[in-house]
Order: sequence, then C-alpha cells, then structure tokens
Amino acid sequence: AAKAILVPVQPADIAEAIEGLPETMQVIAFRLLSKDEAIEVYEQLDSSVQQSLCEKFKRQEVIDIVDKMSPDDRARLFDELPAAVVRRLVSQLSPTERQTTALLLGYEAGTAGRIMTPEYISLKEHYTVGQSLERIRSLANVTETIYSLYVTDGDRKLTGILSLRDLVTAQLDQTIGDILNRDLVCVQTDTDQEEVVRIIQRYDFLAIPVVDSEQRLVGIITVDDVLDILQEETTEDIYALSGVQSQGDNYFQASLLTVARRRVIWLLILLLTNSVTGAILKMQQDILQQVVALSFFIPLLTGTGGNVGAQSSTVVIRGMNTDEIRAMGPLQVIWREGLAGALLGTILGVLATAWATLFIVQGNVSVAVSVGISLVAISILASVAGSALPFLFRTLGLDPALMSAPFITTAVDVLGVLIYFNLARLILQL
Amino acid sequence: AAKAILVPVQPADIAEAIEGLPETMQVIAFRLLSKDEAIEVYEQLDSSVQQSLCEKFKRQEVIDIVDKMSPDDRARLFDELPAAVVRRLVSQLSPTERQTTALLLGYEAGTAGRIMTPEYISLKEHYTVGQSLERIRSLANVTETIYSLYVTDGDRKLTGILSLRDLVTAQLDQTIGDILNRDLVCVQTDTDQEEVVRIIQRYDFLAIPVVDSEQRLVGIITVDDVLDILQEETTEDIYALSGVQSQGDNYFQASLLTVARRRVIWLLILLLTNSVTGAILKMQQDILQQVVALSFFIPLLTGTGGNVGAQSSTVVIRGMNTDEIRAMGPLQVIWREGLAGALLGTILGVLATAWATLFIVQGNVSVAVSVGISLVAISILASVAGSALPFLFRTLGLDPALMSAPFITTAVDVLGVLIYFNLARLILQL
Ligand SMILES: [Mg+2]
Ligand SMILES: [Mg+2]
Ligand SMILES: [Mg+2]
Ligand SMILES: [Mg+2]
Ligand SMILES: [Mg+2]
Ligand SMILES: [Mg+2]
Ligand SMILES: [Mg+2]
Ligand SMILES: [Mg+2]
Ligand SMILES: [Mg+2]
Ligand SMILES: [Mg+2]
Ligand SMILES: [Mg+2]
Ligand SMILES: [Mg+2]
Ligand SMILES: [Mg+2]
Repeated sequence: AAKAILVPVQPADIAEAIEGLPETMQVIAFRLLSKDEAIEVYEQLDSSVQQSLCEKFKRQEVIDIVDKMSPDDRARLFDELPAAVVRRLVSQLSPTERQTTALLLGYEAGTAGRIMTPEYISLKEHYTVGQSLERIRSLANVTETIYSLYVTDGDRKLTGILSLRDLVTAQLDQTIGDILNRDLVCVQTDTDQEEVVRIIQRYDFLAIPVVDSEQRLVGIITVDDVLDILQEETTEDIYALSGVQSQGDNYFQASLLTVARRRVIWLLILLLTNSVTGAILKMQQDILQQVVALSFFIPLLTGTGGNVGAQSSTVVIRGMNTDEIRAMGPLQVIWREGLAGALLGTILGVLATAWATLFIVQGNVSVAVSVGISLVAISILASVAGSALPFLFRTLGLDPALMSAPFITTAVDVLGVLIYFNLARLILQL
Repeated sequence: AAKAILVPVQPADIAEAIEGLPETMQVIAFRLLSKDEAIEVYEQLDSSVQQSLCEKFKRQEVIDIVDKMSPDDRARLFDELPAAVVRRLVSQLSPTERQTTALLLGYEAGTAGRIMTPEYISLKEHYTVGQSLERIRSLANVTETIYSLYVTDGDRKLTGILSLRDLVTAQLDQTIGDILNRDLVCVQTDTDQEEVVRIIQRYDFLAIPVVDSEQRLVGIITVDDVLDILQEETTEDIYALSGVQSQGDNYFQASLLTVARRRVIWLLILLLTNSVTGAILKMQQDILQQVVALSFFIPLLTGTGGNVGAQSSTVVIRGMNTDEIRAMGPLQVIWREGLAGALLGTILGVLATAWATLFIVQGNVSVAVSVGISLVAISILASVAGSALPFLFRTLGLDPALMSAPFITTAVDVLGVLIYFNLARLILQL
C-alpha cells in the first residue's frame, strides 16, 4: 500500500504523500526510499513530520540523513527541534558538517547568515575556462547551484561573479579574470532576510553571495529559499494587519492556547481604546438622553472611520514594503490620502444624510446633517491618521506593518466620536 | 551630469536612476546607453516611464528597442500602452517578433500563456550531450535561460526535461534520451498565474514549461517573473482584506479619482450594512431611552466583534492561499476558531464586565453583565462567521480574498447588536 502511495516522483510530492499517512506508516513509507531520495524528501517534509520521524528512527538512521541534508535546510530543522535533541545530533555529525552547522546557527534568526548555504562553487582568477568547467563538473553533485559562480582571491575575499552562461559562451583558453563581472551585488551576514528578498527580486538573480565584515565569501542564498521567505514575511505582514502575531510557524498546527495567545494581545489593546470611546460616550450622556437618535449612528460613524483608516494604512504599509511608494514623499502621500478621504467622505456623507433623513430621523434634519458632516470629518481624519502613522512608526525605527491597522482604526474611533458629539451640540444647539 | 548618474551598472539600478530624472533628461540619459544596455534597462523601467520614453523617441528608435525586448516584457508593456500605439508598434515589428507578440497577447491576462516567453532551448532525444552543449553555446545569447532544457518530439510535443547540471555531469557521447527526466511538471497556457507561482515554489524550479492543449511546448515561465507575480498577487490580496480594489498598477501613481473609485465600492457596501445596524438600534429606542448607559458600550461590542472576525477570516484566507490549511478540513477549522473565539471572548468579557462595573455603570451590574456575556457570544459568532465565510465563498467559486474582512466584520455588527439588546432585555427584565 505504501508503495502505491509513493508513485509520485518529485520529492515535494513524495513528502506530501508521506505527510498524509498515519504516523506509524510514515516511518515504513520513508524506509522504502533510496538513500538519495530519502534526504531530498526529508528536506521537504513539514517540520512537525521531520520531528516525529526523528524520534521514531534508530539513532544511526537519523544521523545518516541529517548529516547529508543541505546545511541551510538542516539549520532550519534545528531551529524547530528541542535543544537537547539538537545538541545530541550536532555532536554526532561529521566534523565538517558540524562546523558548518555551528557557523549558520551562530547568526541571528532572520538574517542572511542564518538562511545561506556554504555549498557554492568558488573559482580563482587565473583558472582557465576549461579548468573551471572541469571543476564545476566534479562539484556539480555536492553544491547547491552550479549556475552562479564566485571568484575569490587568496584571502577568500569575493572579487567577482560570473554565471555558467558566461562560462559556456567563453573560449576554453580564456581565464576567469578575463570574463568575470566585478560589479558585485552581495549582502552581509547580518543583512535582514527581507532585504535579501528585495535585492533578489530587483536584480532577477538566481542566487546572491553573502560576505562577512571583511568581504570574505561565506555562503550564498538561492532564489528558491527566497520565495519561501517572501511567503513567510508576507504572512507576517498580513497577520499584523489584522492584529495576529506570527512566529514563522503554521497557525493551523499551533495549539489552541498558542492561537489565543497570538490574538489576545491586540484584542486587549483594542479593548482598552474602545473603553476610552465608552468613557467619552458616558460624558455625552446628557445629550444622548435628550436626543436618543444620536446613538443610532454610532456604529455607522466608527465603522466607516475604521474602514477608511484601514484602507489608507494598508496601501501605505504595503507601498513601503514593495517600494511602490518610493517616488512620493511622506507629505505628498498624506496630502493625497487626505484629499481622497475628503472626496470619499463627501460621497458617503451625502448618502448617509439622505438615508438618515428619509428613514431614521424623519423630520429631525439636524441629526442627519450632523451625521453627514461628521462622516466627512472622520473620513479625512482617518485617511490622514492611517497614512501618517506608518511613516511615524518607520521614523521611530518600528516596523510599520506591526503597528497594525486595528490600532489606527480604533484610535480614529475615539476622535470620531468626539467630533460627532461636538458637531451635534453645535448644530442642535444643545 | 547625466553620465555621473549612470555610474550604477546593474540594469535595475540604471533604470531607477533614469526614473528619478526629470522627463527631458530621461531621454538624454537613455541615449547614453549602449544598444544592448538600452534594451535591458528599458525592460526594467516603470511602465509609466516606458510610455513617456516611447512618446519622446523617434519612431525608428522605439521600434529598434521594442523589437529586441524579451517577448514577455514586451507583452507586459503592450498591456499598458494605448491600443492605437500598440497597433502601430506591432505592425512595424519584425515578422517573427510580431507573431510571438500576437501569440502571447492572444492569451487571457493572468494566465500562464500571457506571462510566458517562447525563447527557450529545445533538444531532441537523439542529440548527444556534446551536440547539445554546442547548441546551447550558440543559443546562449538569445534565449531566456540555458539552465532548463526541454526535449520535444517531431510534433513539438514535450517529452522530457533536463537541467544544464544534468548535461554537464553526463558523458559527452551519451544521448539526451539516456539522461532526460520524463517526470514532467508543466502547466497549460490557461493555467492561472497564481497556480504557476504555487508550483514553482513547491518544486523549487528555476523555470516551468507551458504546453498547449495538445501537450506541445509553447513557452516557459522563469522564477524571476514568478517573484514579481507573487508580489503583485499578494498586494491584490492585502488590498482586498481592507476593501481596496487592485488593478495590477501602482496605487501611488493612480489619479485621485481612480483611488476614490477603487475604495468607494466597499465603503458603500459597508455604509449599507452599517445602515442596517442603525435601523436595528432605532428599533431598540425604547430601551435606549430607559437605560442610556447601554449605548456607551456599542463601539466596544461592534469593535471587538469586528476585530475577532477579521483575525479569523485573515488567517483562514491566508491559509488557503499558502496551503498551510491543507491538513485540516473546513469543519475542523471552524470548530477550532469557535473554541478560540469562546476563549478570547471569555477573557475579554470578564475584563470588560469588571471595567464597566467599576468605572462606567457604578451600581448597575446588570448592564455590565449584559456587556460581558454579549462579548463572549459576539466573539464566538465572529470567529465562526470569519472562518466559515471564506470556505463558503470558495465553494461558490468566488475568490475568498476578495470577499474581504470588512464585509465579515460589518455582518457581525448587525448580529452583535441584536444579541446585545436581547440579552440586555432579558437581564434587565425590560
Ligand atoms: Mg551537502
Ligand atoms: Mg532545498
Ligand atoms: Mg525582478
Ligand atoms: Mg536551500
Ligand atoms: Mg521580518
Ligand atoms: Mg516584515
Ligand atoms: Mg521585471
Ligand atoms: Mg529576443
Ligand atoms: Mg527579463
Ligand atoms: Mg520551495
Ligand atoms: Mg521574463
Ligand atoms: Mg488572488
Ligand atoms: Mg489573481
């Protein structure tokens, strides 16, 4: 039965098939794989399945696989395993792999050093093209990529880059020094992984070299891993926009308590700001008592303020992340959002006034007009706050995406309610 | 001055430098580039700058550049240009390029056919490795990639794939038939571009072949373009989550009217649902008149319902897009979200009851208790609705991401207010 499930041939497909099996079957299915296949499939498994296989295998089986994994995938696995298991595994790796792993795990999570792999091909400037092709042929099976090639000097300093395409189109007797590209784009070991994504995307690279503080080449990051990081970072941003914390793991595999913990913090902050809105309403109780109709429009006003503010903050935060906002200065963006808010507020205000007059407060046009004018004011306020706060957060060195939209929308609530009641007092002459 | 600005060497950097120049300087700076550079830089320019250069150049200059662009980049440019300009340009392209462009533009926007490039290397099974390497060398400068190679039969049907790595590690006298990989992963011309992203990410490919309905190879899609598509599709999803429509263009370059148009639709829908909430409140005016304190808590209840609902719908929608939700069935997800909602609602309800009793409705514990119990009910309702509706939309064949969170949150408002007042009537015995 297990063999039938293993008809798929791509490692990613086999990994998914194994993930779908009951735990006891997973070990059996995995043992049916050839040694080379086993390593590739293991790299592709969900970290929870990697862990459970790790526990079920005989010690030697685990070591054999983990020792042969790509260093970057191994570092990712070790991030998830309990510290005791990692220590045991590390101590039994072969010396070179142990050193490599210690190197990667030495860099902070989320930096280029942590996600790179040291398995690249380096060439010297005096090599001929023919010699280089020979070297590539011999290393092709143990290196991450043969398409990006790195030229280093005697001190392991990176001096140039070339692609296999450059090499293939050159004459066999030319030297690497003749054809290499000295216009290096590289990142430091402590460069943020989001910056790595931006650079790869900007230059359409298949890989990017990582150097240490002395410009020595220590590893490379390949585009396939960059795609995964982009996915992960985007999930973080999307979660932040609706007030959910992320931790790089799968939300749907987290325990109920973890889920609650990741959501409760923003909810508590919002409960607090909403409490302020409640306290403000209490201060307006005299007018609410006299004109109970005023309370009918509270959800409409706070709701619209929230929605307009969320729109503005979302486009600005996303624009910062994708660099689409580049061509515009903060003041220009805020001014334009303010104009958009005025325009939208006017449309909504006119409609709301008409609706309120006709259906809700028949006769009492003053209340309807207060609602309409408040909507205009709240829309402008919400767009300005929604677009200005991300810039403020960025200036303070905070990640704008994490200063989530709900915060802005609830802040707008407080001010919106104040505007509404003060306008109503003015118009109703209370 | 212009030359000094052009010190950067990567096409993407030169393109950015040119984008930063005043319009008249852009033409001058661009003319300083060599012919080959000019094409690469032009491909990287923002579509607005591409357009303005297009208008300023002499007719022959434009044709020269556009004729040499990558077919996929050219198709993207033509998407942005006015139809009259496109017709004029197409008619003056060289015959092969004209045919290629007509082919790509014939496929629907957002499908694999529209984003592919027909500039790939195909091999035949009877070629030897040596012959193939010779062919690659001769095509290296006119093809999109030399790292993924495609094997076709006499009818141009795709029969296998191999990588340059496979070729480089093989013996020169082996045939392609000996070493090719027949486990094809390919997409159809009408496959959605989001599906293309998912496949490339899943298998860590550098490129994927595109075949027509008769399995004939018609083009390839490379990973650099996939990164851009992922970015664009994610922006669409993020915008949708806060009720902004996208059109694949840059929000910050759109006119004020376009911005307003993209935002007003959801705001109007939300105005409508908020009006329903208002109408419901009007029906409760007897109780609001008697216990004005009940109105103080409306923002807190609707706000919290909205936030909890947005959290649930966001994680579910994102989970569908990244496939993280795969291992769980809809009912399991909704049940777990309901539990999380109950847990979060209880925490918030207890805190809100205490706060309301102490600071807002001193003495009138019944109101505070109504608020607390309503919070629990609303949190459960919001989590269940927030997680269930995306599944419902997907079943109906709609994109869950586009059925944005604000819709869910406002829907929760209506029910939340109903729950609150009915509970209050019960507890206050009115
Ligand atoms: Mg290795
Ligand atoms: Mg890998
Ligand atoms: Mg790019
Ligand atoms: Mg890797
Ligand atoms: Mg980050
Ligand atoms: Mg981030
Ligand atoms: Mg591009
Ligand atoms: Mg061409
Ligand atoms: Mg290109
Ligand atoms: Mg991948
Ligand atoms: Mg391309
Ligand atoms: Mg989509
Ligand atoms: Mg789409």
